[in-house]
Amino acid sequence: MLKAGIIGATGYTGLALISALVSHPDVTVSLITSNTYKGKKISDIFPLLKGRFETILVPTDDDHAGKCDVYFLCLPHGTSMEAAKKLYDGKALIIDLSADFRFEDVDTYEQVYIPHTAKELIPQSIFGLPEIYRHRIKGATLIGNPGCYPTSAILGLYPLLKAGYLAGDIFIDSKSGVSGAGRETKLGSMFCEVSEGFRPYGVGVHRHEPEIQKEVSKFSKLRVMFVPHLLPMNRGILTTMYSRLSQPLKTKDLLALYRKTYDGEPFVRVMDEGVYPDTRFVRFSNYIDIGLKSFDDGRIVIISAIDNLVKGASGQAIQNMNVALGLSETASLTAVPQFP
Amino acid sequence: MLKAGIIGATGYTGLALISALVSHPDVTVSLITSNTYKGKKISDIFPLLKGRFETILVPTDDDHAGKCDVYFLCLPHGTSMEAAKKLYDGKALIIDLSADFRFEDVDTYEQVYIPHTAKELIPQSIFGLPEIYRHRIKGATLIGNPGCYPTSAILGLYPLLKAGYLAGDIFIDSKSGVSGAGRETKLGSMFCEVSEGFRPYGVGVHRHEPEIQKEVSKFSKLRVMFVPHLLPMNRGILTTMYSRLSQPLKTKDLLALYRKTYDGEPFVRVMDEGVYPDTRFVRFSNYIDIGLKSFDDGRIVIISAIDNLVKGASGQAIQNMNVALGLSETASLTAVPQFP
Amino acid sequence: MLKAGIIGATGYTGLALISALVSHPDVTVSLITSNTYKGKKISDIFPLLKGRFETILVPTDDDHAGKCDVYFLCLPHGTSMEAAKKLYDGKALIIDLSADFRFEDVDTYEQVYIPHTAKELIPQSIFGLPEIYRHRIKGATLIGNPGCYPTSAILGLYPLLKAGYLAGDIFIDSKSGVSGAGRETKLGSMFCEVSEGFRPYGVGVHRHEPEIQKEVSKFSKLRVMFVPHLLPMNRGILTTMYSRLSQPLKTKDLLALYRKTYDGEPFVRVMDEGVYPDTRFVRFSNYIDIGLKSFDDGRIVIISAIDNLVKGASGQAIQNMNVALGLSETASLTAVPQFP
Amino acid sequence: MLKAGIIGATGYTGLALISALVSHPDVTVSLITSNTYKGKKISDIFPLLKGRFETILVPTDDDHAGKCDVYFLCLPHGTSMEAAKKLYDGKALIIDLSADFRFEDVDTYEQVYIPHTAKELIPQSIFGLPEIYRHRIKGATLIGNPGCYPTSAILGLYPLLKAGYLAGDIFIDSKSGVSGAGRETKLGSMFCEVSEGFRPYGVGVHRHEPEIQKEVSKFSKLRVMFVPHLLPMNRGILTTMYSRLSQPLKTKDLLALYRKTYDGEPFVRVMDEGVYPDTRFVRFSNYIDIGLKSFDDGRIVIISAIDNLVKGASGQAIQNMNVALGLSETASLTAVPQFP
Repeated sequence: MLKAGIIGATGYTGLALISALVSHPDVTVSLITSNTYKGKKISDIFPLLKGRFETILVPTDDDHAGKCDVYFLCLPHGTSMEAAKKLYDGKALIIDLSADFRFEDVDTYEQVYIPHTAKELIPQSIFGLPEIYRHRIKGATLIGNPGCYPTSAILGLYPLLKAGYLAGDIFIDSKSGVSGAGRETKLGSMFCEVSEGFRPYGVGVHRHEPEIQKEVSKFSKLRVMFVPHLLPMNRGILTTMYSRLSQPLKTKDLLALYRKTYDGEPFVRVMDEGVYPDTRFVRFSNYIDIGLKSFDDGRIVIISAIDNLVKGASGQAIQNMNVALGLSETASLTAVPQFP
Repeated sequence: MLKAGIIGATGYTGLALISALVSHPDVTVSLITSNTYKGKKISDIFPLLKGRFETILVPTDDDHAGKCDVYFLCLPHGTSMEAAKKLYDGKALIIDLSADFRFEDVDTYEQVYIPHTAKELIPQSIFGLPEIYRHRIKGATLIGNPGCYPTSAILGLYPLLKAGYLAGDIFIDSKSGVSGAGRETKLGSMFCEVSEGFRPYGVGVHRHEPEIQKEVSKFSKLRVMFVPHLLPMNRGILTTMYSRLSQPLKTKDLLALYRKTYDGEPFVRVMDEGVYPDTRFVRFSNYIDIGLKSFDDGRIVIISAIDNLVKGASGQAIQNMNVALGLSETASLTAVPQFP
Repeated sequence: MLKAGIIGATGYTGLALISALVSHPDVTVSLITSNTYKGKKISDIFPLLKGRFETILVPTDDDHAGKCDVYFLCLPHGTSMEAAKKLYDGKALIIDLSADFRFEDVDTYEQVYIPHTAKELIPQSIFGLPEIYRHRIKGATLIGNPGCYPTSAILGLYPLLKAGYLAGDIFIDSKSGVSGAGRETKLGSMFCEVSEGFRPYGVGVHRHEPEIQKEVSKFSKLRVMFVPHLLPMNRGILTTMYSRLSQPLKTKDLLALYRKTYDGEPFVRVMDEGVYPDTRFVRFSNYIDIGLKSFDDGRIVIISAIDNLVKGASGQAIQNMNVALGLSETASLTAVPQFP
Repeated sequence: MLKAGIIGATGYTGLALISALVSHPDVTVSLITSNTYKGKKISDIFPLLKGRFETILVPTDDDHAGKCDVYFLCLPHGTSMEAAKKLYDGKALIIDLSADFRFEDVDTYEQVYIPHTAKELIPQSIFGLPEIYRHRIKGATLIGNPGCYPTSAILGLYPLLKAGYLAGDIFIDSKSGVSGAGRETKLGSMFCEVSEGFRPYGVGVHRHEPEIQKEVSKFSKLRVMFVPHLLPMNRGILTTMYSRLSQPLKTKDLLALYRKTYDGEPFVRVMDEGVYPDTRFVRFSNYIDIGLKSFDDGRIVIISAIDNLVKGASGQAIQNMNVALGLSETASLTAVPQFP
């Protein structure tokens, strides 16, 4: 069994990693860390794990290099690059769930976030979207796991971008469940501040816009506008994207293009014509569902849905691990979506 | 006291009318109807009214002409035009909350809905958006109360349309709470089918798109695309609109334009720069909150929020009544939004 | 107009006070305080107040004595008694929404809470349940506003206690919406920690148990057991109480007893036989709805529902103010419950 | 592979069976039926199954005898006994999720439900609570799968009943998520009728009370009172039970009794002292979590939590199948609870 370490294990992504990996045939979680809860059993933090996974948390700040075959960094940006520096040895696989290794271009990163203190590692790092970069993920030693919103947007646009069909502003209207904001206490994530309400946030200034833009810019000069909104629910992202095609194309032909582009992809489901994604139907699974509709005059709307904690975070991280280490890509990711 | 009748009083809009009108200084609800619950007290249907309003429901199908000074029709389209025919006498005010009298152009109505059987009344009917048509609503005898989504979209776009500033496709991404679907039992409105999920519906085929388009077309040849989504919450609509300006304009100048356009409007609140609407902050009130942001290259996003049962239905109906009958426009509509 | 001050105005109870008092015919809110947000407009904290109430917050720690006719203390226990000491002058009315002045017996208070530093004020203080202590509230200068759970439990039991009909253990199973936990950020009140879940808390150790017990003990030697639970919703308390009668009595006779006991009470609604309270039907109102069912063998279940922020806090505080100052008891408390 | 048939597969229990059984190592779902949706793919009804399980639904009314090794009847009571009559041959295992075969005593059944038309099968039927009746379930051919509420109550009380420790009225206060009401459209299950509200129902007349009473009566003459409530959430039952012990016993000794009674049980988790169940921590799993607290004077509160669709229905049905057919008891039931 390969050994996995989860650095910063007491957030929602850490829990999602543990919950999935307990059923992984080739990987065992041998290390979990937390500075806040060090010395406690993870099952005391998350009683749902009682009887299933009761490992004791060790301090995040300890030296964990050389202990594991794969490390998942579930830390805030900035902290994550520091941890990566300590752990990186070119042998163990490091999968960073923060933004620290998502940008090949350090200038863009520093403009959007903070000064980067592990620039020497950036050339090693691969943007972990297997559907686009699988060949580069194989054998990688450092993976920048994509953001939740960018995953939903980029995979929704990719077939059109690759085919060169887009020709207008790209307006990306995303809606996310609250777990995307993490488990730190903050007023905006309190039940009464969210329940029975709906609001946009980070309008025109959200850090995921440049992450989406950088991928779009590999194919096109089009600009994206990204407006996220907060849904009164736990899990799920639905992204509705509006643009224009370079020429009118029928919905069914575009769906055929999507099916061809994603042929063989285990976690991409292209909807039938007239059917659109619903976060309920991907919940607790690693699927991304994609639907679309085009209009006679070339306008188009594309809709995608993911579980932000699975395909948008921990599931994709495991998928990346499976690809990078040559394991079965779907290992421990075969759960059927859960509803209701 | 003027007498009001509510035809079809046991849905959410009927309840919202009653709840507001019990505090109206000049109007009393003297007639409430329901075929399903005829003979029962409304407070047995909605126990929240116990001790406050316990009137007995009479059959909708009875002849109610000449009994009231104002009638609110809370009936499905088709049924509503039939009721209007029976009640209309050029004296009493009829406010129809269905779509039957929202379209001046009967062809458009019939294309979107069904054959119209009360065409002779259409010339009398006014589209009930007081912020745009107040002068025509005064003294009107038949008002087509606007749809909830159209209210949020049209008032969000109106200052730009009027100023002739819009110059690109208008993409309208709306999200509504479940009460917008009414109180009839249907699978899609069941708790487990909605809770912890989010989905689009009626993509490119929703009947509110032509209602929005007809108003936009009064100012511009631009086409709108309207995509509604279902929120896992009771009340509230948030509409996010994307387009391009004919020339780049600063956010603050645009907000100034909005403030000027809506100067003196009792129910329109224009947000400060950097602040955006939130359905929580209009809940149970007749306000529409509007915010926006423009970009250097002329792209713009406009966001509006309303309570779909108040400004999106019953509150606006009462506002229309107040205007039409020369009462204080804010009478019985002064409740502060309720939160949490 | 009488002047009201709200000390600690940026929590949910402060907001609920403001929202109600803006429509009070005889009282105006002239002072609102907050140490955290001092210098800001309350409408920047709660944008729903925009255009309606935009007063600037002043520091809670400033000296506010002599400025107002009535002070509402919305502070944590301990802090509240300190504020009361500074403000109390025997003329202005002080209504404390914390627990500091709910216990006539300082020993019980200190056992349950902390050492009391304003013991000299306790003899002045009245437990603010108007349905039981109206005659003492009239003219009072210091009122300990009851806890939300105790309000629901005590008023649910009172007619039976007063009649001497209870004769078994009293098991009180309460369920509250999240707003009862206040607006301070804490893990247990985060959306993802509450939504789609339900749990008991404070089993056998909640501070509201002694508050209920002290009132029960005025009538009976029976012991109460109180188990609160957290509901995944914003507002509302439903309390289900189980016990035995000293002798079997019919449901309808007991309901008659309740109606007689609460005859003339503006905010108590006794349900019909076979109908039970529902938090939806008291939401945003000052009502307490009470229903019950007895069994042939003397067992009984009593159920009550309130809005925890209204009858369970701010509404009751205003009711107390109205009674104490000789105003109309229902002034600014006449809103019909809101649903859905 | 053994063949399983799901009779009435388009409700929530049918979906839960399919979702779990797709990963069963020894059983494959070869037959799914629905009169309403016959001829359609189940994945068109539940798009979440797309790519995973796309079997076509055949009419429930067809003759399915002899086709499968195990049949799960997910039908309303009354309909279920008719289906059982047709399918029962003493070889195939029939697991009925309705109430039709839960009562050994047909008189009780008929008093609570309707006349029984398959009385000849009742002697074959076993009440499917493996923790109590495992020895009888082994090799059974007809199993009456327990109700969701009774499962939570009976397993919560069983160790005390078996030990003869209970000596007072048993008050059972249960709270269930909405999925317990099934997938048929009804007003009371509509989103707006449930969300942001909480209410009791079936007070003193719910059919699960006699089901609980009959099990309690095997050990004791005590009477139970059962009051269910509807939670504004999808899944989960929390049951809070109040009673008196025949003699005061310490919490920790009682927990030890529970641990001993349930020693080796794969799906029962007894909490530590001071820790109480939470529906969030059993969600989507087959666990029942149980906690309790006793008081010096002999009063006791016991709290249990299950997922109503898993341990309360489909998961327990699979557990029963596994036991009856000699398969691994936990097969396809090993999913870790999912949170948030």
